[in-house]
Amino acid sequence: MPKSQPIAVVVLAAGKGTRMRSDFPKVLHKAAGRTLLSHVLHSAAAARPQRTVVIAGPDMPEVGAEAHQVAPDAVIAIQEKRQGTAHAVGIAKDGLQGFDGTVLVLYGDVPLIRTETITALADAVSDESPLAVLGFRAANPTGYGRLIQNRSGKLVAIREELDTTVDERRIDLCNSGFIAIRAKLLWELLPRIDNNNAKHEFYLTDLVGLTVAGERQVALAECPEAEVHGVNTRAQLAQIEGLLQARYRQGAMDNGATLIDPASVFLSADTEIGKDVTIEPHVVIGPKVKIGDNVEILAFSHIEGATVSDGARIGPFARLRPGAEIGRNAHIGNFVEIKKATIGEGAKANHLTYIGDARVGARSNIGAGTITCNYDGYEKHLTEIGSDVFVGSNTALVAPVKLGDASNIAAGSVITGDVPEHALAIARGQQAVKPGWAKKYRELKKAKKEKRGKS
Amino acid sequence: MPKSQPIAVVVLAAGKGTRMRSDFPKVLHKAAGRTLLSHVLHSAAAARPQRTVVIAGPDMPEVGAEAHQVAPDAVIAIQEKRQGTAHAVGIAKDGLQGFDGTVLVLYGDVPLIRTETITALADAVSDESPLAVLGFRAANPTGYGRLIQNRSGKLVAIREELDTTVDERRIDLCNSGFIAIRAKLLWELLPRIDNNNAKHEFYLTDLVGLTVAGERQVALAECPEAEVHGVNTRAQLAQIEGLLQARYRQGAMDNGATLIDPASVFLSADTEIGKDVTIEPHVVIGPKVKIGDNVEILAFSHIEGATVSDGARIGPFARLRPGAEIGRNAHIGNFVEIKKATIGEGAKANHLTYIGDARVGARSNIGAGTITCNYDGYEKHLTEIGSDVFVGSNTALVAPVKLGDASNIAAGSVITGDVPEHALAIARGQQAVKPGWAKKYRELKKAKKEKRGKS
Amino acid sequence: MPKSQPIAVVVLAAGKGTRMRSDFPKVLHKAAGRTLLSHVLHSAAAARPQRTVVIAGPDMPEVGAEAHQVAPDAVIAIQEKRQGTAHAVGIAKDGLQGFDGTVLVLYGDVPLIRTETITALADAVSDESPLAVLGFRAANPTGYGRLIQNRSGKLVAIREELDTTVDERRIDLCNSGFIAIRAKLLWELLPRIDNNNAKHEFYLTDLVGLTVAGERQVALAECPEAEVHGVNTRAQLAQIEGLLQARYRQGAMDNGATLIDPASVFLSADTEIGKDVTIEPHVVIGPKVKIGDNVEILAFSHIEGATVSDGARIGPFARLRPGAEIGRNAHIGNFVEIKKATIGEGAKANHLTYIGDARVGARSNIGAGTITCNYDGYEKHLTEIGSDVFVGSNTALVAPVKLGDASNIAAGSVITGDVPEHALAIARGQQAVKPGWAKKYRELKKAKKEKRGKS
Repeated sequence: MPKSQPIAVVVLAAGKGTRMRSDFPKVLHKAAGRTLLSHVLHSAAAARPQRTVVIAGPDMPEVGAEAHQVAPDAVIAIQEKRQGTAHAVGIAKDGLQGFDGTVLVLYGDVPLIRTETITALADAVSDESPLAVLGFRAANPTGYGRLIQNRSGKLVAIREELDTTVDERRIDLCNSGFIAIRAKLLWELLPRIDNNNAKHEFYLTDLVGLTVAGERQVALAECPEAEVHGVNTRAQLAQIEGLLQARYRQGAMDNGATLIDPASVFLSADTEIGKDVTIEPHVVIGPKVKIGDNVEILAFSHIEGATVSDGARIGPFARLRPGAEIGRNAHIGNFVEIKKATIGEGAKANHLTYIGDARVGARSNIGAGTITCNYDGYEKHLTEIGSDVFVGSNTALVAPVKLGDASNIAAGSVITGDVPEHALAIARGQQAVKPGWAKKYRELKKAKKEKRGKS
Repeated sequence: MPKSQPIAVVVLAAGKGTRMRSDFPKVLHKAAGRTLLSHVLHSAAAARPQRTVVIAGPDMPEVGAEAHQVAPDAVIAIQEKRQGTAHAVGIAKDGLQGFDGTVLVLYGDVPLIRTETITALADAVSDESPLAVLGFRAANPTGYGRLIQNRSGKLVAIREELDTTVDERRIDLCNSGFIAIRAKLLWELLPRIDNNNAKHEFYLTDLVGLTVAGERQVALAECPEAEVHGVNTRAQLAQIEGLLQARYRQGAMDNGATLIDPASVFLSADTEIGKDVTIEPHVVIGPKVKIGDNVEILAFSHIEGATVSDGARIGPFARLRPGAEIGRNAHIGNFVEIKKATIGEGAKANHLTYIGDARVGARSNIGAGTITCNYDGYEKHLTEIGSDVFVGSNTALVAPVKLGDASNIAAGSVITGDVPEHALAIARGQQAVKPGWAKKYRELKKAKKEKRGKS
Repeated sequence: MPKSQPIAVVVLAAGKGTRMRSDFPKVLHKAAGRTLLSHVLHSAAAARPQRTVVIAGPDMPEVGAEAHQVAPDAVIAIQEKRQGTAHAVGIAKDGLQGFDGTVLVLYGDVPLIRTETITALADAVSDESPLAVLGFRAANPTGYGRLIQNRSGKLVAIREELDTTVDERRIDLCNSGFIAIRAKLLWELLPRIDNNNAKHEFYLTDLVGLTVAGERQVALAECPEAEVHGVNTRAQLAQIEGLLQARYRQGAMDNGATLIDPASVFLSADTEIGKDVTIEPHVVIGPKVKIGDNVEILAFSHIEGATVSDGARIGPFARLRPGAEIGRNAHIGNFVEIKKATIGEGAKANHLTYIGDARVGARSNIGAGTITCNYDGYEKHLTEIGSDVFVGSNTALVAPVKLGDASNIAAGSVITGDVPEHALAIARGQQAVKPGWAKKYRELKKAKKEKRGKS
């Protein structure tokens, strides 16, 4: 492969997305835990562009902020009025700061584009073909602009549906809107695009005709249709989510994980899953999750920002929140929430427990109903539990507090002070029994009820 | 549109549904939280009929009771023996009490019929065409009766599959069984229908032939195939559920809600969802739920009879039961159940909590493991929590009890008496520590185990 | 039907399954809670074979152990080197111990084969047709070997895709690989199979040509394509799971259960479900579960090894673990875990509770947040709760402990000693109130924060 020219990307992200019925800009809607814009910028970033310009609409400061999360050096340019794609790209000129390589035009609401496709499109540009268009084979081409090729495969025109002949209508190679073009040619042709059309907009597709008219060739790159789905409605957003999830699920399975029901398991772009992991149905994994080998994730688990080491078992009904670090062979069971806490190797918290802002040592057993009282209404405090500790059920650990190694906490205790190693701590009321009380109470209640019935 | 004649509806609901393998009448099975009969009666009620007659089978008192839930004035008529649709409609005569407009025949086990379709069918009836039949274009017409039209589009016959010619078999316009007919014509023709057929039943479809024979026209109305799916098996019931859910989900998305995975979110006919609401996968929303704008419903939430105000966050693993009213920007977190309780603006109950029969003031923080002990085994009592209250973790609030504004409850307390404003309440045992106890206990247990091993 | 000959089954289970990317043998991967091998052996066992031989790879001791779970008398034979299906069957010879009836060759990674099909294949073998091959009609036959029949329907050849003529390519009857053959013929022909082919392997399909060449007939049995899907990847494993679940769900619906959303309900091969049971979406049922009539299983329930009696209500968010026996009309509610415990008729445990190693009597009410402290860190102990007991909320029951009939436990108690019938037991701290404390605390915290802000 010849060494490619440097690339710059221009991301069109000014659309309001009125069909989304939202107060938020369209490109900030999320799929698989990431904004649409972020998906595009992640794919672009991996192609290592020299410059990135994002075209935002007016009154969308969040779009710039979001862009900078992924591409800190991105220039944000504002398109005050929507006058078409060519107009939008024109606005990027200053931001490109005299860039002289290949400019790629991407779309903030077409989030499935892969880095490989971006690179292939850029690589299709050459001295002979200074413009390249990305096409796709449509299952049902009706409504799309068709790509008309000459015998050598070069593009000679983009024909809008309305203008197609009967023969052309059978062409399934369609226009994605994505292009790559030498900067020099771009700035030469852009001013020549007019808005003599129904919507009075300036269209980037006109570059094809102008390039051909200038006796230069237009190259073609292709990608699967699934990569160029755009988002205009919430239903389309859901479709995008589905396509992304299908990608991630397939990746996890290829990597050696069993997804019992792939369709009910939700992953994130950055989810890492090891080998011989089993994931039961109905599991949601948010951003920043790493799962080691031989882990079992049982049904109804919700995991974000957490690390799960080899051999651990999570769920069912477990929630791991950011900062949860689950050690090797540890067990986190039902109705248990772990937040910002390390759980040592082989430790267990199997039932109805909240562990937040804590360290739990190896092999410790956290009884059912244990709660770390980490918050005093003003500040969070740390709970430190040593190794081989046994915390009896229904215990409240009022932080800051330390339980020494191999200590034992009696069930039902409220622990407010540190407990030395090997000690027992107990903090609960004495049991009193009142014989016959329950019977009398029942009779009292019955009498009360009867009285009420009469009145 | 010319002013329509008044309408009456007759709902055939006498079928036993033996293929359902159920002890309950077929029309009382539920889809999307409503009985099949209720779906039909809701659609009918919106068309404002003057009379409603429901034909039930013998020994089905619940059918009448269910009908009266939606249509309190409905007359219930009993079909003692199943002798066909025409026979069933005949039984409705008394209940129609001399009604003189257009009679519509609906089916209690065909629940997806929409009000628009009912109205369109009624409107198709006119002086020239005193009978109208509802048809649908079948994706696969095999097995359905075909609607045979003349050149002007009027219906001339309903041809059963067995009697079709090769040409007729290609017709995809099929008979739904729904009809609308002038009452006068109905009572004139009904006695002329015979049961000279394989099953010895009286069929309503014979009205078409009799009307045409009487030199009157039969009009046609059309609806999508999805509206006329009937229920005979549990598998078909599941299909109906799927079609209803698809409708509700699309409605929520059109309205501006993001359903990350529409297929795993279950809504009800009366669910109201605001704009810029996000619903994670795996959420079940039962009847009588209102959700405001900018609400987040995280995965694994189960909500019925509840109101969720703007900006609130629910779940994951939250259960809102009837009477839960969640204030603006309030947070209800994991393993939290709210029943018959108002949660104030900005209040939080984030972990492992049960709040029932309670009022929680604005900005109050309910610690992990808090339980309102609302039931004494005989009666339910109220828990009143003021504003800005801090309830420490693992606390039991024994109702009736009041916590004053800005009061503070120490973690692990059992609160049985009222707490004044700004006060601290604490109710727990003192902590005792027994050094070395855990070690001795371990040794004891070990010795016991060894002894057992030997014996 | 003529009396069949005795059968023996040889299950080829030596494949490593490298495309699974797993440290475990392929046939030990699970679908619907059972290993692939176990599915095959269960189907085979119901056909009552006289001998069962499982061909395992070297270093797969778990394969033999798993086989013996289902077929205790199975002989395990080791195929040291993979040299094709005929080679593998040859290894079974010793294990068949001179067996003289019909030998069936099954595949450990083709788990959907049904007993009916195995029997039909065996029954296709006769004196005239001592070999029978199992075929299936492929929706898309490309890539499969085609079964070439003569006019009388007997098989004359298996043609590999590469060798097919244009006409043969249109044949949709394909080779499953499953065969049944008279033992005598098998041992006569097997040594004549050679490995003069691309992979230098010995193929079982060559038996067809050898049989025909010996002027004997080859019979044909057919099964649906769904039964002969094999597993080579995790994605195919997920497909198998889907097909199995579809079977089980249909069976439950046919039996009279309503599955609101069949696709989100997961059952096991041995799940028993009664009539008029309703199962909400998002439910996972593992092995060994029996559900009676009129039971409601609400969303987000996870059930394994449990019995649920008539009229009981489970969930939402309930977990029933092995040994849970839920009595008639009992209620197990949200965030409740039951393990190895019997729950009496009409008893209720509705919220945030763990009941393990326990007996709960009829009509007893277990308050929210009740926990049986069954484990002391070394041993499990029993909690015995009588009938008509009222256990107040947030109570810890430290086992071993007995609560007598009609006794009453005050909310928030830690019960360590037995409670007599009709008695009240109470074990908690006294409530102390410190007026104004919360206000002072708040001011203190505020001052601290400000100080910190300055420093």
